[in-house]
Amino acid sequence: MSPVKRTVLWVLALGFFVVAGSTAQEPAAAGEYPGLETGKMWTFDVPPLEYWARRYNFRPSQAWLDHARLAAARLGGCTASFVSADGLVMTNNHCARGCIAAVSRQGEDLLGNGFYATTRAEERTCPGGFVEQLREITDVTDQVSAAVPAGTPANRAADLRAEAIRGIEQRCRGTQTDVTCQVVTMYRGGQYKLYRFRRFTDVRLVFAPEVSMAFWGGDPDNFTYPRHDLDVTFYRVYVNGQPAQMDVFYRWSRNGSREGDLVFVVGNPGSTGRLNTLSVLEYLRDVQYPATLDAFARQIAVYTALGQMSPERTAALRNTLFGIQNSQKATQGYLAGLVDPQLMARKTAWERDFRNRVNANPELRQRYGSAWDNIARIRGQMRAVDVPRRYHSFGAYGTRLLSLAGAIVRYPAEMAKADSSRLPAFRDANRQRTEGALYATAPIDTTQEIRMLAAYFTAMARELPANDPVRRQALGTQSPEDAVRAMVRASQILTGDQRRTLVQGGASAIAASTDPFVALARVIDPLERAIATQWTAYLNEEAQNDEFIARALLAVFGNTVAPDATFSLRISDGEVRRYPSNGTQAQPYTTFYGLYDRAYGFNLQEPWNLTPRWLAARSRLDLATPFNAVSTNDIIGGNSGSPVINRDGEIVGLIFDGNIEAQPMRFLFSEAVGRSVWVDSRGLVEALRRVYDADALANELTRGN
Amino acid sequence: MSPVKRTVLWVLALGFFVVAGSTAQEPAAAGEYPGLETGKMWTFDVPPLEYWARRYNFRPSQAWLDHARLAAARLGGCTASFVSADGLVMTNNHCARGCIAAVSRQGEDLLGNGFYATTRAEERTCPGGFVEQLREITDVTDQVSAAVPAGTPANRAADLRAEAIRGIEQRCRGTQTDVTCQVVTMYRGGQYKLYRFRRFTDVRLVFAPEVSMAFWGGDPDNFTYPRHDLDVTFYRVYVNGQPAQMDVFYRWSRNGSREGDLVFVVGNPGSTGRLNTLSVLEYLRDVQYPATLDAFARQIAVYTALGQMSPERTAALRNTLFGIQNSQKATQGYLAGLVDPQLMARKTAWERDFRNRVNANPELRQRYGSAWDNIARIRGQMRAVDVPRRYHSFGAYGTRLLSLAGAIVRYPAEMAKADSSRLPAFRDANRQRTEGALYATAPIDTTQEIRMLAAYFTAMARELPANDPVRRQALGTQSPEDAVRAMVRASQILTGDQRRTLVQGGASAIAASTDPFVALARVIDPLERAIATQWTAYLNEEAQNDEFIARALLAVFGNTVAPDATFSLRISDGEVRRYPSNGTQAQPYTTFYGLYDRAYGFNLQEPWNLTPRWLAARSRLDLATPFNAVSTNDIIGGNSGSPVINRDGEIVGLIFDGNIEAQPMRFLFSEAVGRSVWVDSRGLVEALRRVYDADALANELTRGN
Repeated sequence: MSPVKRTVLWVLALGFFVVAGSTAQEPAAAGEYPGLETGKMWTFDVPPLEYWARRYNFRPSQAWLDHARLAAARLGGCTASFVSADGLVMTNNHCARGCIAAVSRQGEDLLGNGFYATTRAEERTCPGGFVEQLREITDVTDQVSAAVPAGTPANRAADLRAEAIRGIEQRCRGTQTDVTCQVVTMYRGGQYKLYRFRRFTDVRLVFAPEVSMAFWGGDPDNFTYPRHDLDVTFYRVYVNGQPAQMDVFYRWSRNGSREGDLVFVVGNPGSTGRLNTLSVLEYLRDVQYPATLDAFARQIAVYTALGQMSPERTAALRNTLFGIQNSQKATQGYLAGLVDPQLMARKTAWERDFRNRVNANPELRQRYGSAWDNIARIRGQMRAVDVPRRYHSFGAYGTRLLSLAGAIVRYPAEMAKADSSRLPAFRDANRQRTEGALYATAPIDTTQEIRMLAAYFTAMARELPANDPVRRQALGTQSPEDAVRAMVRASQILTGDQRRTLVQGGASAIAASTDPFVALARVIDPLERAIATQWTAYLNEEAQNDEFIARALLAVFGNTVAPDATFSLRISDGEVRRYPSNGTQAQPYTTFYGLYDRAYGFNLQEPWNLTPRWLAARSRLDLATPFNAVSTNDIIGGNSGSPVINRDGEIVGLIFDGNIEAQPMRFLFSEAVGRSVWVDSRGLVEALRRVYDADALANELTRGN
Repeated sequence: MSPVKRTVLWVLALGFFVVAGSTAQEPAAAGEYPGLETGKMWTFDVPPLEYWARRYNFRPSQAWLDHARLAAARLGGCTASFVSADGLVMTNNHCARGCIAAVSRQGEDLLGNGFYATTRAEERTCPGGFVEQLREITDVTDQVSAAVPAGTPANRAADLRAEAIRGIEQRCRGTQTDVTCQVVTMYRGGQYKLYRFRRFTDVRLVFAPEVSMAFWGGDPDNFTYPRHDLDVTFYRVYVNGQPAQMDVFYRWSRNGSREGDLVFVVGNPGSTGRLNTLSVLEYLRDVQYPATLDAFARQIAVYTALGQMSPERTAALRNTLFGIQNSQKATQGYLAGLVDPQLMARKTAWERDFRNRVNANPELRQRYGSAWDNIARIRGQMRAVDVPRRYHSFGAYGTRLLSLAGAIVRYPAEMAKADSSRLPAFRDANRQRTEGALYATAPIDTTQEIRMLAAYFTAMARELPANDPVRRQALGTQSPEDAVRAMVRASQILTGDQRRTLVQGGASAIAASTDPFVALARVIDPLERAIATQWTAYLNEEAQNDEFIARALLAVFGNTVAPDATFSLRISDGEVRRYPSNGTQAQPYTTFYGLYDRAYGFNLQEPWNLTPRWLAARSRLDLATPFNAVSTNDIIGGNSGSPVINRDGEIVGLIFDGNIEAQPMRFLFSEAVGRSVWVDSRGLVEALRRVYDADALANELTRGN
């Protein structure tokens, strides 16, 4: 703060600082490397060797790449890596919570207290666990394309393609039990690649910290940085009852990283939409995300009001509320990119340039030139049905009666069909779950039901025209709240027994039911089916045009642009880098000092409390050890548990999150302020040794066996 | 980061978090306490007792208020407080840099290394130092108003008012040497208050930390939080060569504060603009700040480019560049509030309500009802001359030749006038400085001159019409860069000797000069004078209307709304409070842990390096001690050095900054995310004892003598 006057010589005005905006550099994407418009999630069969050489003076050998690929692994929804010759596997704690809970025994709380198997005999088998190692990538684009004759209508083409892919996968797997095969759609159908995995299915838990330290700072700190999480868990894979002997695994870096170092993240990013055309992004920006955020806001308001009714409700709704707020935060993050004029202007310029290049080539123009306009037209059609689609459905998240009524109304019609023709919920494989929900004996919380439905009906009344049949049936001339109260009061499907009797009465009983929710569901049923069919047709037609654009992209740029994420193995380059944040710079590394600072800064209040083990370890830890770090690698959900490796292919970190500024990168890549967030390899080992007395595990990491 | 698939039971999707926006509460200003629209900078003669009682259940006695007032102090541009019976005074290090530099002796670097007088004999006298204690406040509104008959034209009224104020101040001071008297304009002329101070002029330096620890994190961290600064300096005031014996001083709190505690800041906020009408804010938003930011960006671009020419230039320009970036950051902060739709909507609603109340009262309506529209009209007139005003002037910041030419052209005309009629730079009091600059022998840096002027002329060519006389003289048909190069090449005022000769040649020589800068200055001179006269008239007319609005405000709301800051003593209430930041919550306190975290997180790079004393003290400090803290008190530049006191009037902290979110509060008050930032009293004493071995000083603070 500057003093305001300078009346006396010895008082100086101060207050200089670096401006956030002016130091937010875009070192690559927009300028020097235009191929980075779609990001840096490179595939191992098409590594961007020239780009790496030019940008980092780094040109890895094929052996380096093979090693980086084979030492990485995929879990359900996450990434992992092999980190010792004896089959040790490293991933995030938040990817392993299911296993940790499952192997907990009576009276144990391994999630809460952590776990360490000091001997191999103590390692516990994760039920249903698996780890997949990518062995081979084969281009099967021609095989898939051959299955779809030119000119096939979009819906039919989708079926034929799916069938061809199933066949390729089945032939690849054959009768091998330790092999998984998956055809990965790249560039939205521009290419198809067959990924063949070795599958380890004997997975045992070796180590997990307390969940509160793995997810430290909890919900508030999630998706942010500076951060202080020990988000790690170790497994060991076994083969024939013995620890798997791994020829290939990542060694532990002796010195860790420094700011400015080139680092790679090897992992399985789940989904990005960077090849989306402008019209799709505008649809998300103008229609889909605002509607989604509106629904979130409605739900949060209702749950918050319910929570204020009693401490019990507060406790019961806490996780639900956090879950919605989580989704709200993520959606706000995506939207933040789409409303950023600079990011959208860059995207606009890029698409214009791309289209100009396509149109400059008569053949490309003839084949693909109309795809952008087609998609814009389709999105226009989707906009037109967006509102009815949201309300011609069986109801809002957080309510039960209308969705139960929907299941009742549809039950006889669906059950009369062949299994494969039914809606998924009514297929034999899911029938038990569906009927379990339908006939559940748990009472309906009518207080919540009334409030949530009233909020939903209020939105409906605002958005649907007065003559809409669903609105008319639901509200008539009543206020939303009166309508809902009357419906609940008159309902005859409030108990599982009532619902079972009604379903068992068959189509005629259901058609004759005077339950107001069943009556409303009867109106919705045909409307919902019609819109769903139409919607699928839109999506299939758009997919066909997406494929045209992808082919055009490959024709114009070749493989120099990375495909969108598809939860398949990628390697992404980046550098350890501070970034402008909060008016200053975010530090490239946090240390254990930072953990204790934030803990005591909040007076040890949850979720910034410390476990007894960490309180006791304060004096033993080298507090200046790097704990978490940030880099410019390109990651997204699915990369959780990814190794961060250096030029020598050694572990320097473990990805567990992205910062809040990285959320818009789902659609618009940028290196300015979005960062990957990881556990530093040095902090990880320091914690194992000084907090958990896990020297054997630490030694296995640092020695490699 | 959520995993993307849930194919296996034991992988759970995580990633909950609290949403920043949804937890950003506006606990008071907009809702419960509408009187807070103009903030919380209360005067001691009109304490908001009812509001404090209602909001905090706190009703201080007059004795409490007198004590809080008398223990506070004012320095040039800053605030301070008396903190022992022996005249110890606490303020910020950044308010004391001038003194510390001035008392440094040959071979000493007290700014860099810090200072501690272990005995009173070692305390060093600050040349020109003073400390002012507010003894009395008297309402002199009637006296000032009586000096300006109703209907006096604006310019004349301004002169009469200034004369009346000078008289009141002189009569108050009389012949006393230890008294200062100042008439403070409150509510922009709605009230005038006479502030009488006791003035201590023997001020000695007792303690200062190393400037790098007092301003830790330097320019980047300035104006931000979380923060880790020991921004403190202690003086002692002496009377008759002995430490002043103080009846009244703040005692040191034994336990410090906790989150949620009510705390008061007593200090001298410099300037706010919360009574500005909407049309003024719109002018700042649309005209003034964009132009200012444009000029900053231009200067930064030129200095950055110059800096890249050589390491010497980089070093020479470093502080200049930081200074501009500082101003840029502050201006961006102010603008951020003005472009915030929510804040502006609240202001709009508030002004509409205020005007409705005025118009509902016939007398008020008749007297004041047109003031808002008058100001809007004046601002419209100001908009119309804004562009010529910026270019019909003697040039851009960072250039010399055009401003020297301006001084040359004006010299004879100004010197021919009576002293009091001259432009300030030419009055006898300033003449030596002006001539020193005019005849300086230091060479003109023509490289910088050309670049800076070219950037300025480029902006001029973009903004001024082609037929503008200044543009025509400056550019003709040339490009800006060509024009500037030609002007510099042809210049005859490049040396001090050339300029002296020209000035000594008198009006005729100057009129005949073919120097291109002098020629341009001759064109600018009359235009600049005309616009300046017009501008002053606008401001005086606006001031008159401001006064009408202020009187209306007092008539409608009474003293329940606080006046704008005027660098006079105020007391502001607040609470220690975390706030939503960066997607999570900013901690209410930082600790010494945080200092070391950020230092090691940046690998001890400047400005996050630690002095040897702090590196050595790591193991001695209780690292969990609160170091800095945030609260919702209402402060601004000038509050630097203000005490933060608790309900018992005891010191719990020392204000030194506001966070980046507080910048928009210059115009639009809000408690949502803007925070005062202070040194915690506990961290201060811990550092004195453990880092500086200053137990005697620490004891004087904690014991009060």
